[in-house]
Amino acid sequence: MELQFLGTGAGMPSKIRNTSAAVLNLSAEGEGYWLFDCGEATQHQILHTNLKPRKITKIFITHLHGDHIYGLPGLIGSRSFLGGDERLDIYGPSGLDEWLETTLRITKVHLNYALGIHEIGEGFVFEDEKFRVSAKSLQHVIPCLGYRIEQKELPGKLLIDKAVVAGVPKGPLLKQLKDGKDVTLEDGRVVRSEDVTGDPEKGFTVAILGDTSYCLAAVELARGADILVHEATFDTETGNLAREYGHSTIGDAALVAKQAGVKVLIANHISARFMPSDLAKLKEQGEAIFPVLHIAEDFARFEWRDGEVIRLEEF
Amino acid sequence: MELQFLGTGAGMPSKIRNTSAAVLNLSAEGEGYWLFDCGEATQHQILHTNLKPRKITKIFITHLHGDHIYGLPGLIGSRSFLGGDERLDIYGPSGLDEWLETTLRITKVHLNYALGIHEIGEGFVFEDEKFRVSAKSLQHVIPCLGYRIEQKELPGKLLIDKAVVAGVPKGPLLKQLKDGKDVTLEDGRVVRSEDVTGDPEKGFTVAILGDTSYCLAAVELARGADILVHEATFDTETGNLAREYGHSTIGDAALVAKQAGVKVLIANHISARFMPSDLAKLKEQGEAIFPVLHIAEDFARFEWRDGEVIRLEEF
Ligand SMILES: [Zn+2]
Ligand SMILES: [Zn+2]
Repeated sequence: MELQFLGTGAGMPSKIRNTSAAVLNLSAEGEGYWLFDCGEATQHQILHTNLKPRKITKIFITHLHGDHIYGLPGLIGSRSFLGGDERLDIYGPSGLDEWLETTLRITKVHLNYALGIHEIGEGFVFEDEKFRVSAKSLQHVIPCLGYRIEQKELPGKLLIDKAVVAGVPKGPLLKQLKDGKDVTLEDGRVVRSEDVTGDPEKGFTVAILGDTSYCLAAVELARGADILVHEATFDTETGNLAREYGHSTIGDAALVAKQAGVKVLIANHISARFMPSDLAKLKEQGEAIFPVLHIAEDFARFEWRDGEVIRLEEF
Repeated sequence: MELQFLGTGAGMPSKIRNTSAAVLNLSAEGEGYWLFDCGEATQHQILHTNLKPRKITKIFITHLHGDHIYGLPGLIGSRSFLGGDERLDIYGPSGLDEWLETTLRITKVHLNYALGIHEIGEGFVFEDEKFRVSAKSLQHVIPCLGYRIEQKELPGKLLIDKAVVAGVPKGPLLKQLKDGKDVTLEDGRVVRSEDVTGDPEKGFTVAILGDTSYCLAAVELARGADILVHEATFDTETGNLAREYGHSTIGDAALVAKQAGVKVLIANHISARFMPSDLAKLKEQGEAIFPVLHIAEDFARFEWRDGEVIRLEEF
């Protein structure tokens, strides 16, 4: 799993931060990419990465402010033009369907793939064999969702030595054991998968939140997560603005991370009032509350590998 | 008058050409900026110029394909956020009002200025003391307009020597004569403005067209213009695609320029299939038909000064 930020600014684009978008790259897990929010010019940002629009299989929208959705129509159209022919599902709050339907109709967009638009509220969002996604309502000036993405337990690794000792020949039987199926050998003996595989491994959990003031729903969504992506539009000194406009300070984000017991906090949705030289101070304010904290820049990439979160340097 | 291109690509953004937008900067003429089309990320392009969104007073939309309008909602909202409080008028084909109304309502955009949305067809679009704008239907796969912007005759320059000889003292009376008003001197003599001002000067005419195949309406819109902005999505070799998708080759654009007798042709809406190294050939194909031709790049600027069109080098 890799998480790449395409837009980490607040409200409006600036020269260094685009409006909100982040890609959860689940190619290694066989799910394609899941996009979280899609501010204007998200497709432009993608041009500067190795990502392919046609590999986006799901888009999760936190709320219907323009800085989180104005890039959707362009991306939806370009995905088709660039060869996308697999189904795309978009999840988000009520109003999303009317807006997209109206936009695609009036601007005469023809798609070479099936588009599913799902208006959702709190609770269950999506589940398959490998993942479970749920949502909760955050505290913003308009309805806004946070998402919790849980990878289900991974089957334990095949212990080849044990299997060989048990008499399993090299070949397809090993694959069956690895996939959790018991096998019968030529001499009639049964080898049970659980006897020749390790313990199931814990999958990752990522919470990706929309715009919000500090709230308990954020803590619940992030409980025990490997990564919490939480907005930090303001700093301590501008906390009054945060409360007035339904946003968080970096301290609010850190408090959620601490109370939820996450591994790593990644702050995004940074106000354009902060210059690059202000970020060290912002980081300090957060780290005073929760020490494992990154402030995301556009194109920043994070990898989850063997239970650890690594910030990738090249972007 | 200055004309700056913000997006010169076709259909989708590329790394070097954004989707369509061009600014007619009429600050010197007291009209603010007029924007022609507004593809996604037009507000992002503006960040890399000296232009101020609040100075945009009118937006003219050629047609409702996404590569010409998906930047509108973001720009409309940011213009307000960036201090714009003067009225903004947007002109374009039927459907524009429903789309903008739906978009601004669902995404909860609050504006600190009056927004006028005008659905228009062929003919008169707008007129004031200084300008006249008219439109004609072009030939595209959906309804598409081209615009003709005519500056009205400018009052002749004040001939100061003549005024002084006529006995006009330095001061406010000179200004009145310059503004076309006759004045009465202290001794009762009347000095007529037309006797102490030069001949009225011809204003400029610019034709800015939307996506189109070669058509007579384009020629009529461009008749005798100083500048014709005409799409050139394809080259001679891909002319079959141009005809199939309602677009022009560079040769079609040049033919319109020639038949209309314009001063300068500026080609835009260039397909991403053409690499920078292909442009010389494209230009040659056009110049074989009409010699005074520029291919616009993003951020290219042109100035109209004393009846001449000058390409500005710094951008
Ligand atoms: Zn936001
Ligand atoms: Zn176009």
